[in-house]
Amino acid sequence: MRPSGRALNAMRPIIIETQVTRYAEGSCLIKCGETQVICTATVEERVPPFLKNSGKGWVTAEYGMLPRATHSRMRREAKNGQSGRTQEIQRLIGRSLRAGVDFQALGERQIQIDCDVIQADGGTRCASITGGWVALKLAVQKLMAAGLVKTDPILDHVAAVSCGIYAGQAVVDLDYAEDSEAGTDGNFVMTGRGKLIEVQASAEGATFARSELDALMDLAEAGVSELVEAQKAAVSA
Amino acid sequence: MRPSGRALNAMRPIIIETQVTRYAEGSCLIKCGETQVICTATVEERVPPFLKNSGKGWVTAEYGMLPRATHSRMRREAKNGQSGRTQEIQRLIGRSLRAGVDFQALGERQIQIDCDVIQADGGTRCASITGGWVALKLAVQKLMAAGLVKTDPILDHVAAVSCGIYAGQAVVDLDYAEDSEAGTDGNFVMTGRGKLIEVQASAEGATFARSELDALMDLAEAGVSELVEAQKAAVSA
Amino acid sequence: MRPSGRALNAMRPIIIETQVTRYAEGSCLIKCGETQVICTATVEERVPPFLKNSGKGWVTAEYGMLPRATHSRMRREAKNGQSGRTQEIQRLIGRSLRAGVDFQALGERQIQIDCDVIQADGGTRCASITGGWVALKLAVQKLMAAGLVKTDPILDHVAAVSCGIYAGQAVVDLDYAEDSEAGTDGNFVMTGRGKLIEVQASAEGATFARSELDALMDLAEAGVSELVEAQKAAVSA
Amino acid sequence: MRPSGRALNAMRPIIIETQVTRYAEGSCLIKCGETQVICTATVEERVPPFLKNSGKGWVTAEYGMLPRATHSRMRREAKNGQSGRTQEIQRLIGRSLRAGVDFQALGERQIQIDCDVIQADGGTRCASITGGWVALKLAVQKLMAAGLVKTDPILDHVAAVSCGIYAGQAVVDLDYAEDSEAGTDGNFVMTGRGKLIEVQASAEGATFARSELDALMDLAEAGVSELVEAQKAAVSA
Amino acid sequence: MRPSGRALNAMRPIIIETQVTRYAEGSCLIKCGETQVICTATVEERVPPFLKNSGKGWVTAEYGMLPRATHSRMRREAKNGQSGRTQEIQRLIGRSLRAGVDFQALGERQIQIDCDVIQADGGTRCASITGGWVALKLAVQKLMAAGLVKTDPILDHVAAVSCGIYAGQAVVDLDYAEDSEAGTDGNFVMTGRGKLIEVQASAEGATFARSELDALMDLAEAGVSELVEAQKAAVSA
Amino acid sequence: MRPSGRALNAMRPIIIETQVTRYAEGSCLIKCGETQVICTATVEERVPPFLKNSGKGWVTAEYGMLPRATHSRMRREAKNGQSGRTQEIQRLIGRSLRAGVDFQALGERQIQIDCDVIQADGGTRCASITGGWVALKLAVQKLMAAGLVKTDPILDHVAAVSCGIYAGQAVVDLDYAEDSEAGTDGNFVMTGRGKLIEVQASAEGATFARSELDALMDLAEAGVSELVEAQKAAVSA
Repeated sequence: MRPSGRALNAMRPIIIETQVTRYAEGSCLIKCGETQVICTATVEERVPPFLKNSGKGWVTAEYGMLPRATHSRMRREAKNGQSGRTQEIQRLIGRSLRAGVDFQALGERQIQIDCDVIQADGGTRCASITGGWVALKLAVQKLMAAGLVKTDPILDHVAAVSCGIYAGQAVVDLDYAEDSEAGTDGNFVMTGRGKLIEVQASAEGATFARSELDALMDLAEAGVSELVEAQKAAVSA
Repeated sequence: MRPSGRALNAMRPIIIETQVTRYAEGSCLIKCGETQVICTATVEERVPPFLKNSGKGWVTAEYGMLPRATHSRMRREAKNGQSGRTQEIQRLIGRSLRAGVDFQALGERQIQIDCDVIQADGGTRCASITGGWVALKLAVQKLMAAGLVKTDPILDHVAAVSCGIYAGQAVVDLDYAEDSEAGTDGNFVMTGRGKLIEVQASAEGATFARSELDALMDLAEAGVSELVEAQKAAVSA
Repeated sequence: MRPSGRALNAMRPIIIETQVTRYAEGSCLIKCGETQVICTATVEERVPPFLKNSGKGWVTAEYGMLPRATHSRMRREAKNGQSGRTQEIQRLIGRSLRAGVDFQALGERQIQIDCDVIQADGGTRCASITGGWVALKLAVQKLMAAGLVKTDPILDHVAAVSCGIYAGQAVVDLDYAEDSEAGTDGNFVMTGRGKLIEVQASAEGATFARSELDALMDLAEAGVSELVEAQKAAVSA
Repeated sequence: MRPSGRALNAMRPIIIETQVTRYAEGSCLIKCGETQVICTATVEERVPPFLKNSGKGWVTAEYGMLPRATHSRMRREAKNGQSGRTQEIQRLIGRSLRAGVDFQALGERQIQIDCDVIQADGGTRCASITGGWVALKLAVQKLMAAGLVKTDPILDHVAAVSCGIYAGQAVVDLDYAEDSEAGTDGNFVMTGRGKLIEVQASAEGATFARSELDALMDLAEAGVSELVEAQKAAVSA
Repeated sequence: MRPSGRALNAMRPIIIETQVTRYAEGSCLIKCGETQVICTATVEERVPPFLKNSGKGWVTAEYGMLPRATHSRMRREAKNGQSGRTQEIQRLIGRSLRAGVDFQALGERQIQIDCDVIQADGGTRCASITGGWVALKLAVQKLMAAGLVKTDPILDHVAAVSCGIYAGQAVVDLDYAEDSEAGTDGNFVMTGRGKLIEVQASAEGATFARSELDALMDLAEAGVSELVEAQKAAVSA
Repeated sequence: MRPSGRALNAMRPIIIETQVTRYAEGSCLIKCGETQVICTATVEERVPPFLKNSGKGWVTAEYGMLPRATHSRMRREAKNGQSGRTQEIQRLIGRSLRAGVDFQALGERQIQIDCDVIQADGGTRCASITGGWVALKLAVQKLMAAGLVKTDPILDHVAAVSCGIYAGQAVVDLDYAEDSEAGTDGNFVMTGRGKLIEVQASAEGATFARSELDALMDLAEAGVSELVEAQKAAVSA
């Protein structure tokens, strides 16, 4: 019944290739089906003004898309400025990743996460969070290996999946064909231990019942578990 | 225990004064405690390009704050451009209000909602949605009275309340003192019949459990009911 | 003969409500007929770079309009940047208020005046100057009450009125209906003692004679006297 | 007593060289003492949207300065955007020139005036108006010679001079040394017949009396007469 | 003697993988050593205004870099606008590719080339031209296969290589280590038949003799031949 | 055969008037035929951040055009931002002039070159380089006369000429009529001793052979010699 033929609770194949660029302190290419995002982590020995001399670090994120990552070409944001959607997404990525970090342990430095979508087939913000965490973790491992950080500041995994009501049924990990038709669409960001970081569910054309939100949450919990397993395999490789 | 002395489930006083400006087709000043927002609805006999010749209408929203609406003065966005936060909020307001409108019934015209915060004490985006709906409804009543719209395009009330975990307890309708300290913070947009339009819950410092989200939802349902009563009183006045 | 039925030298009713916001050090809502402007004064313990370590303070102003303050909705400047007209007006407001302040007495701090038009029916720049002075005076009273300023830096009242040639006659305090038809339009900023701070008179469609400018000045002198009385009542309340 | 040794009512030497560029329909280089402005008029067979199909024309103006036209180099506006001051000046130039044009006679076309300051020694906006009128007149002569315009749309000369209170005395045509020290500074735009188009007088540090404004006006009337004579010589050459 | 140990006339390994994205009409990932660029071609059934109703087509290009494509992270242009360097490069890419296209044969449509650098190790603009041509050719093949274009509008190959004077010797295909130290640096764009499209040679610290430019040209001719062979293999695969 | 009737190797008349502005440390008006550029040099006792405390100086350049310097009026860049073309040109001017300066000898100060085109008839970037060098040299002479610089930091002349293939023949110093029709167009920046600083040759419609580039280089060498003679006369005047 789903355009892809997947079961209602079936995630797309998840592939996480690590250290895909020469220069970044941490990096990965995450593929969730046809969605592909390059995530890099850059360690900077400076912090935003409000943290100067606090002894605490920071994590922030930026998000972009290649103009032809999508079915129809989108305007290049470098020429037109970031859209409201882009800003909303990168704020979500940064907020989500920060929820899993001990900034005292990180020390007064910033890790900048860049998520650039190479190909988009739905779920790019969730893939960015899941892949962004891998890049972040790898960069932290490098800081610890170099003795610059003593205690692991990464408190837990952070991963995200989209769920929605498609053709009247709750489904997990929507691709573009489903996303563009879904009546309700939600993004669920969770930790490795199953705690919630961010829940965003939105009616697109039809309102939804609390019982439907519950069904989406059930799917999300199972989906995030799979993503966390893929993260574990990636960072221990 | 709450800074204001309110019970955990106690909303702030809600005051909605209608037709507060001479020119707008619909308008109100909504006060949720010390938070004050002027909401206006402007009817425009044009639609965005993607709706040209579709016979369907549109509702869109913009949000702003007077620079000294806040405790410390904020930079004027007219000089600096809209922040990511502002864009995120106005996208939410527009999306929320659209969920309660039948665009076929509205006909090919646009209603522009402007929400300008005069004084901010927490919950400005929720007050903007609740007050924006009143302005929208009043403008539609005017269109119907003039015979320009035959069937009421307003399908249901749309109202919003914030809930959060403050000092370990679930509380409704956070003021600024609570909002700035809350471990988890959520905005719940619902219809008059209790269906969900948008749920946004976000960990601020501490992750949250699904049971906590459930507690927030319980508070939100009750809170939105009160807001809907206030809307009813306002638009029938 | 005037659209409002007023006599040629009749001002609109002036209402100045003070301390209309919780946070600003000084504030008022000024109503000149249907024109309504919220004016706030923010005290900042810093000065522009050219005054660093001079021992002297500064007063500056910004001006804005709610998009639906006008008969037809105007584009939100936060999305489009400040227009040339807006910049011209806020430069005038700042220049006018500075003419009545002793910056040595104020000490090395800045007072930022914000004038936001809630409803526009002509004369918004004049109302902003008159109301901006009230907000400024109230903020200075607070600084003096706190012992931060010893000598009153407010040298005199500053108030402004528009006058113009409407239907061939000199009239005072033009409303929008007159303003949009006036052949000549002028703004007169004066002190409480009747000295001039700024005179701006401009032909709109027809040039004017020096005798006509004299007639406008006569009206302005009387009009500003009334405004100064209203200011006195407001700040001593 | 004046830095230049001029008498209180002595203008600086006025030189107007016409047709200084190959391409513009009308052009001049105006020199008022050391102030030098290139003014060009461009005829465009289009009008702003609000005049489409009205049969009426338009005149508009833009103003700029070479970065090193001034004593200290100023930032290039092409890199930083036009300042509020620049926008205010070009609005004044356009408004002033329009006051002397019959747009019905001009027909549905626009004349764009560009005023670019090559060297600045005070009075650049006044020189721009006076020189801009010459460029405008020359372009109109060309349109009439070509038979495109039948009735002369130029109703009268438009010229401008600055006057101010320097060292307690009213003086005409301030240079930079005077302008930067003047207590009051005014710009007076007038027609060839001595009617007023725009009066802008502003206190800079000290307020001024109505009698002082009268003295400035007397000086301005005489000064503009001299400028008009120079214009006549230039356009009949 | 070269940091990489390459001979003076040795190119880096060239790898061109085609159709690397799902959506673009033509695409490739070009690797010149460690430099990697994703090139896509988008066919648009519209042309710039100056070609409307001309029967002729157009090719244009945009260029970007992922922020961490470089050794140190660069600021994201979507947040800061395109730099002068970026604009210069994308103008070069477009101009170069257009030199090899018959726009009459292409018909009134535009092909938009996007070159996004994933990893930068010198020579990104040359790799963008060489890879951009492959994407363009593949898109044209698709148009011809669909019968939309009858005569092949691709007149010849277009490829580019950098050459420079490094440590006093002429070398081909500079990597970043050489590029940042080179006394003279040039980019040579040529056709498959060895004709020149663009030559840009620039002194960086030391001027150069005409005989040195000749030596660079010799190296470039050989280098471009190798690139053209790689292009042939790629588009016939 | 050339539109101007010039021989293939004939330059346009070169006129360089020095010290054309009152304020700049060095300045000239350069006329190459009908092309006219005002070049000024401003000495600033500061350097860009990357040279702080290096003991070395810097030269940078900006380029602009009066809107009606061209046959058809161009949009004012102050209102619209600098075009890619403008940025490319000013980068070239700065790079070219820097190639002839010993920054150690200049000391830690910056010389800002401004090139503003008053009238454009082809070759504006080359005239800007040639005239910019004169302004630079004059400013350095002033610094040396004042004893602020001991050793002349100007290593050699820097001048530039355009050459191109017009109607199948190599010609020097293209005017606009030739430039807009040329098949190949190049800019050649050279020193007084005939060394190369920058070579930019570009196919415009037709590719070119290496032998054609050689012919352009021959013409350029002779042309630059003439320009250098004019520079010598100008700076020793």
